[in-house]
Amino acid sequence: MILCTSSDLLKEQLQRIREETQKNVVQNKITLLSEAEKQQVECILTYGNFDDAITAEELEQLPNVKWIQTMSSGTEQLPHNMIKKKNIHVTSAKGVHAISISEYVLGAMLHFAKKIEKFQVLKKNKIWADSEEMFELHGKTICILGTGHIAQEIARKTKVFGMNILGVNRSGNHVEGFDEIYSLHQIAEIFPQCDYICSALPSTIETRDLIKKETIDFMKDGVVFINVGRGDLIVEEDFIQALQAGKIGGAALDVFKSEPLEYGHPLWSTDNLIITPHTSYKTNRYIHRVLAIFLANYSYFKYGNFEDMINKIN
Amino acid sequence: MILCTSSDLLKEQLQRIREETQKNVVQNKITLLSEAEKQQVECILTYGNFDDAITAEELEQLPNVKWIQTMSSGTEQLPHNMIKKKNIHVTSAKGVHAISISEYVLGAMLHFAKKIEKFQVLKKNKIWADSEEMFELHGKTICILGTGHIAQEIARKTKVFGMNILGVNRSGNHVEGFDEIYSLHQIAEIFPQCDYICSALPSTIETRDLIKKETIDFMKDGVVFINVGRGDLIVEEDFIQALQAGKIGGAALDVFKSEPLEYGHPLWSTDNLIITPHTSYKTNRYIHRVLAIFLANYSYFKYGNFEDMINKIN
Repeated sequence: MILCTSSDLLKEQLQRIREETQKNVVQNKITLLSEAEKQQVECILTYGNFDDAITAEELEQLPNVKWIQTMSSGTEQLPHNMIKKKNIHVTSAKGVHAISISEYVLGAMLHFAKKIEKFQVLKKNKIWADSEEMFELHGKTICILGTGHIAQEIARKTKVFGMNILGVNRSGNHVEGFDEIYSLHQIAEIFPQCDYICSALPSTIETRDLIKKETIDFMKDGVVFINVGRGDLIVEEDFIQALQAGKIGGAALDVFKSEPLEYGHPLWSTDNLIITPHTSYKTNRYIHRVLAIFLANYSYFKYGNFEDMINKIN
Repeated sequence: MILCTSSDLLKEQLQRIREETQKNVVQNKITLLSEAEKQQVECILTYGNFDDAITAEELEQLPNVKWIQTMSSGTEQLPHNMIKKKNIHVTSAKGVHAISISEYVLGAMLHFAKKIEKFQVLKKNKIWADSEEMFELHGKTICILGTGHIAQEIARKTKVFGMNILGVNRSGNHVEGFDEIYSLHQIAEIFPQCDYICSALPSTIETRDLIKKETIDFMKDGVVFINVGRGDLIVEEDFIQALQAGKIGGAALDVFKSEPLEYGHPLWSTDNLIITPHTSYKTNRYIHRVLAIFLANYSYFKYGNFEDMINKIN
């Protein structure tokens, strides 16, 4: 039995897995495993997307794989047909992103509210501009697209700042911690009220290209927009235009339609924009939280108890 | 009876005071009032410090002044001897700064934790650096110097981020919202534990020059230091040296020994430092909150009821 991972785990993290599972842990791409190794892989630990994606062809080479634990929350990039065909169990790292990503969102909101970039420019020019007024989050309205783990933690934190919190999900059904919940079809109604809009949505047919000229037009002038969900939410040309026109007053994007963002992409040179390389989740605490889920799930897996595993996708 | 203010109130704010008090409101420096006006001034609305300070000489020119309402929290720059001699009542704006200043503090903390400045430089160079790890506030320790209104609101907000909160005051007596309280004499004990140190201290004999080489040496390497209290807390040369050496990893200073910070001051060109011009309190909501206190106090003042006034200093 081999545990295989192609993710960027450190030596001590691999060592911890070896010690706690007492199994052979191989850190390699599936295609680079020996034939003997491929026969023995029963379990894969992987981000399951982008640089660390897994293909149907790779899975086909592993006759005995039984379980994939993703280190990501979203599992939409996994080869689901092959997974079903081979009857592989999948568990995700859902929930581990809430703390780090919600901190990032508050950081971005306060960056714009407190005009930190403007004060950094003034500092460079040694200008004491005490007529420059900061904004407050207090009393303002945020729309959080999504009402899952991450969205709930953003709601909990923005609440203590005295914000009015609107949540948006598929059903429009109430979720604890939000002042009001709307369905995705009601954004024309609520976007005009919102000083901040933050997406923590996954990528689905309903969310792809949701943020485009038509929906941006509903937004308040000067709105601050933050995307920590998936990059294909946004029609990037329309978004850039809105930022340049000041319709969107500030934005923080951690995710993009195509990652890594290519060198020539116009977003790099768009102002009033924070760009982070899909790392808002990735603090030094992240891997620890993922490994805690993985090891808990392993303790079920080793007895063939797939039923009780945490964050079962299928 | 004249209400006199030399502060930067807007026309509509002056108009609101006129309407609600039904009194003559004059916006001018005391020294520029006519002799007839000076005779009639009974009430002064003023920041009471820095650009908008009031001198003993000015007060001496006002035979009938009975009440000073400051728009600041601290009243240490008022000419207290003259105020006592003339038996003038003083009320402050204590409490109105908590929301705006606590937001500023969280913004500064997240600015450094989320490495926003580093990502802005990477953006300028169009570099996708996804190995760059952000930090979390979660699980970290903050020392808040001071346990008054502002400090309590910082404690309330940092609590929701899952931080460990140490408060420091004169007595070391417990205050709600802090995990532990220490006295000013114990900083050698607690500074080594703290990832963040934030001062909301007033200027007193005990706090002046408290942050100097000897006390900085107690701090954790890479500590983030924020000052929203008074500038004379810090021996600026020592502080700059610690920032340059990386001993202090990041800092946000809203107050300075001498304000405005002069053009040639070395702080302007010190890295890993946010400088704001004593405006962390000054959002567009600030004046509204001050006027609410002022007008409530006026409603007591007009009946000679000084006893029930809010934020009485003397």
